[in-house]
Amino acid sequence: MNPFVFWNPTVLYYGQNQIEQHLVSEVKKYGSKVLLVYGGGSIKTFGLYDKVVNLLKSADITVFEFSGVEPNPRLTTVHRAIELCRQEEIDLLLAVGGGSVLDATKAIAAGVPYEGDVWDFYQTQKRPNEALPFGTILTLAATGSEMNSGGVITNWETKEKIGSSSPLTFPKFSFCDAENTFTVSREQTMYGIVDMFSHVLEAYFSHTPNTFLQERLMESVMQTIIENAQKVLDHPHDFAARETIMYCGTMALNGMISMGVQGDWATHAIEHEVSAIYDIPHGGGLAILFPNWMNYVLDAGIDRFYQLATRVFHIDSAGKSQREVAQEGILAVRRFFTSLGAPRALSDYQIGAQEIERMAEHAVRIGPIGHYKKLEREDVAAILRAAL
Amino acid sequence: MNPFVFWNPTVLYYGQNQIEQHLVSEVKKYGSKVLLVYGGGSIKTFGLYDKVVNLLKSADITVFEFSGVEPNPRLTTVHRAIELCRQEEIDLLLAVGGGSVLDATKAIAAGVPYEGDVWDFYQTQKRPNEALPFGTILTLAATGSEMNSGGVITNWETKEKIGSSSPLTFPKFSFCDAENTFTVSREQTMYGIVDMFSHVLEAYFSHTPNTFLQERLMESVMQTIIENAQKVLDHPHDFAARETIMYCGTMALNGMISMGVQGDWATHAIEHEVSAIYDIPHGGGLAILFPNWMNYVLDAGIDRFYQLATRVFHIDSAGKSQREVAQEGILAVRRFFTSLGAPRALSDYQIGAQEIERMAEHAVRIGPIGHYKKLEREDVAAILRAAL
Repeated sequence: MNPFVFWNPTVLYYGQNQIEQHLVSEVKKYGSKVLLVYGGGSIKTFGLYDKVVNLLKSADITVFEFSGVEPNPRLTTVHRAIELCRQEEIDLLLAVGGGSVLDATKAIAAGVPYEGDVWDFYQTQKRPNEALPFGTILTLAATGSEMNSGGVITNWETKEKIGSSSPLTFPKFSFCDAENTFTVSREQTMYGIVDMFSHVLEAYFSHTPNTFLQERLMESVMQTIIENAQKVLDHPHDFAARETIMYCGTMALNGMISMGVQGDWATHAIEHEVSAIYDIPHGGGLAILFPNWMNYVLDAGIDRFYQLATRVFHIDSAGKSQREVAQEGILAVRRFFTSLGAPRALSDYQIGAQEIERMAEHAVRIGPIGHYKKLEREDVAAILRAAL
Repeated sequence: MNPFVFWNPTVLYYGQNQIEQHLVSEVKKYGSKVLLVYGGGSIKTFGLYDKVVNLLKSADITVFEFSGVEPNPRLTTVHRAIELCRQEEIDLLLAVGGGSVLDATKAIAAGVPYEGDVWDFYQTQKRPNEALPFGTILTLAATGSEMNSGGVITNWETKEKIGSSSPLTFPKFSFCDAENTFTVSREQTMYGIVDMFSHVLEAYFSHTPNTFLQERLMESVMQTIIENAQKVLDHPHDFAARETIMYCGTMALNGMISMGVQGDWATHAIEHEVSAIYDIPHGGGLAILFPNWMNYVLDAGIDRFYQLATRVFHIDSAGKSQREVAQEGILAVRRFFTSLGAPRALSDYQIGAQEIERMAEHAVRIGPIGHYKKLEREDVAAILRAAL
């Protein structure tokens, strides 16, 4: 493994009734003026909004609201929320939603005390020196944003979707009650599953030596996702299945399974290019792109593909070449995604070849992307073309 | 899984040269008067002592020393160190050693600001309200104490060995450089391996429902220990093998693989009774007791034993009953421990039946122990007799 520093200070609450028991005391550690950040208002339809607001107000906490955070959250939205926080002198942000709301909240937290444009933290190497504290209440199992310091923001004007992270943007606390995901649509549930599975794949395809345990931990998460994905789609009110999937999402990207591992992350970078222009769901983009990335980089290290095929998908290797087994593993990933209802090609989103060169160009604007195999502009373009 | 709160704020450093790069800055966060806590002085023979002291002194940090922390660290030792900390107004403790030194340091940290006897935190339900900060430099892969808040202290006068934990006794930081374990003897290395494997077993034998991912994470740690144990015994200077084992030790008991899981922990409780009286190595006691505990509680839930046998030890189940497979799994655990050179029976330590009733009586002084099967006095005695 590579030398590493691991630190993850988020207080993680899982299970029912944790919000009732602990939300107020957690919030009060940070002040009395809270900005509730949320999305389209689905939290109102299943009662979470009322529960949270009532709990806070009955504890004499002043609650401000910022709603309308969109999927692929936008810089302009973040700017408006920063302005509100400054005006109202907010003490703590409380994100109630999925990865988009949480990622937007991280940007708001970093932006409030910063004199420049918060976009600096995404577009450049600059990182915040301070940030507002924030907590989260998760309503969608997907990004792992509830227990990591990363977030992705889209600048719709420049058509850029960029991720950033800082030790200051870990949630102070996160509440994960699977019941709050019961009403997530089949489609959103599926995208979340693809997203978390992809997070593990990004870490798994690595040349870092001596990561025996990390590889097995990652395989554990992937196997558990596979075993529970269909359950949660078929029985959206199955608490155990919802909780297992939620927990896989948290563990897939809280750093615990990938300490000291240099992951690849090219597929995420390419997907960001696609959804920056076409605003497609992140999980949908990943489902399309990952198998194509895998096919393209297979020869950069066939062993790990073989290991994925045999350990995670239990592909029988008898009488087959290592390459054949590895390729069956790639097919198995594709089949897993499509079995959930995920798209297979960019054409499923009516995306054609028009913008491929522009996306490829922008993907490598700082230099080659990916670590399993370094991808240049023409590699990215080839993967995108294969994905059409 | 059970509802849970997870929080682990330790900053974990793995790899070479981390001490050189980060120790001073970590220490300086907490003050300028440091008490170095260590054991018998082996850290002087391989150069770690000099390295640490030189780094601290060259940064104008005043270094005090407390040496002589023994295996199964004793309350009287802790008392002496607490006195020294008060006299010298120490800002930060720096534990350099294995689990015993770290556990003693946790007791010292909790004891310094406490007006009563620190033993209160072990013998009663009382827990500290404040504690001195402390960091660790690990020299023995075993207890996981480098990234958890627990510790075990022995009161030699009352012949009691009791564990305790508190949110205030997480290390602020821990440095884990596998090179610092190169000179650990074959015997101590073996005991450490048994200890970490046992930590996973304690969590694994659980009736908590819906822990699919947690079970796989635990199986991952056990498999990785099995795959690397002999390597590290045969090649004590193999950095990769030492680091993998060290990392397994950290992950086995930092809470990350067992969130929301009610583990058993009876075997540890029984072992504490044995080593409180006979002062045997903890790992030796565990190697003897665990298979006997397993035989005794098999019928409390044969499924998990079967799962251990097939998933971790890859025992072929064809043509065998579930019980036969489960029993082969227990044999495999025994065989794994003895293959490393661990003892098989209490008689290997010249321990007879004399104190069995006393140990059994004390083990259940507060009530039945264990969660996979609740053990009463006579159950503990039966397990101890089987272990003779």
